[in-house]
Amino acid sequence: MERKGMLLVGHGSKLPYNQELVESTGKIVQERHPEYVVKCAFMNMNSPSIEESLNEFKKEKIDALVVVPLFLAKGVHIVKDIPGLIGLPEGAHKGTFAINGREIPLVYAEPIGSDPLLADLMAKNAKNALALI
Amino acid sequence: MERKGMLLVGHGSKLPYNQELVESTGKIVQERHPEYVVKCAFMNMNSPSIEESLNEFKKEKIDALVVVPLFLAKGVHIVKDIPGLIGLPEGAHKGTFAINGREIPLVYAEPIGSDPLLADLMAKNAKNALALI
Repeated sequence: MERKGMLLVGHGSKLPYNQELVESTGKIVQERHPEYVVKCAFMNMNSPSIEESLNEFKKEKIDALVVVPLFLAKGVHIVKDIPGLIGLPEGAHKGTFAINGREIPLVYAEPIGSDPLLADLMAKNAKNALALI
Repeated sequence: MERKGMLLVGHGSKLPYNQELVESTGKIVQERHPEYVVKCAFMNMNSPSIEESLNEFKKEKIDALVVVPLFLAKGVHIVKDIPGLIGLPEGAHKGTFAINGREIPLVYAEPIGSDPLLADLMAKNAKNALALI
């Protein structure tokens, strides 16, 4: 069975922290989910770009590609910029990706958004900080 | 026993999504953790500001205040701007907050950062998108 590609897209930053976050998160996802081929890309300032990582996926044996934005919430990058770069019209979540002379499904995931897991993360960070007292 | 204050700080945005995310996450934390008094604040564009929410905490019966940034990773807001607004020198995570004529401990939590919970969220969003195929 072929694996699926997962492109984790970060915002990018002049400081190193966003890139480190995206790359380390990609590694954890890859370790926990061998059913995916995980690659990272950045909207701004860091590399590889989305175009560069899409080109790298053309070398992989995958039967679908999912683009997952590592962004907290919708914004201009999520609604306009990333869809444009992955060949989707604004508002669409499903398209195709040309790979080795065939087309595979491409889907575009939601950003983090409101999620109990995020609330748990905030409570965990609060508890860690309160341990300083 | 007095409760602890938790100030959840978001980036803010011209679009409504960041504010919605921060406020809904604050509600989930409050429901799950009645030991905190949870309030939200925004660095930019949305209200209340950090100063406004800190003033609101002066009306609460709390014995400590933890400031938790709902940001993915460190950046200028995390390293410089928020510390300045909550009265901490750059790099410090522990200070005090003046409330009703006394000083209570104030601590400053880390942003989300690399965490297995974040990797799980990315895998969950990917799976939901792949269900569209």
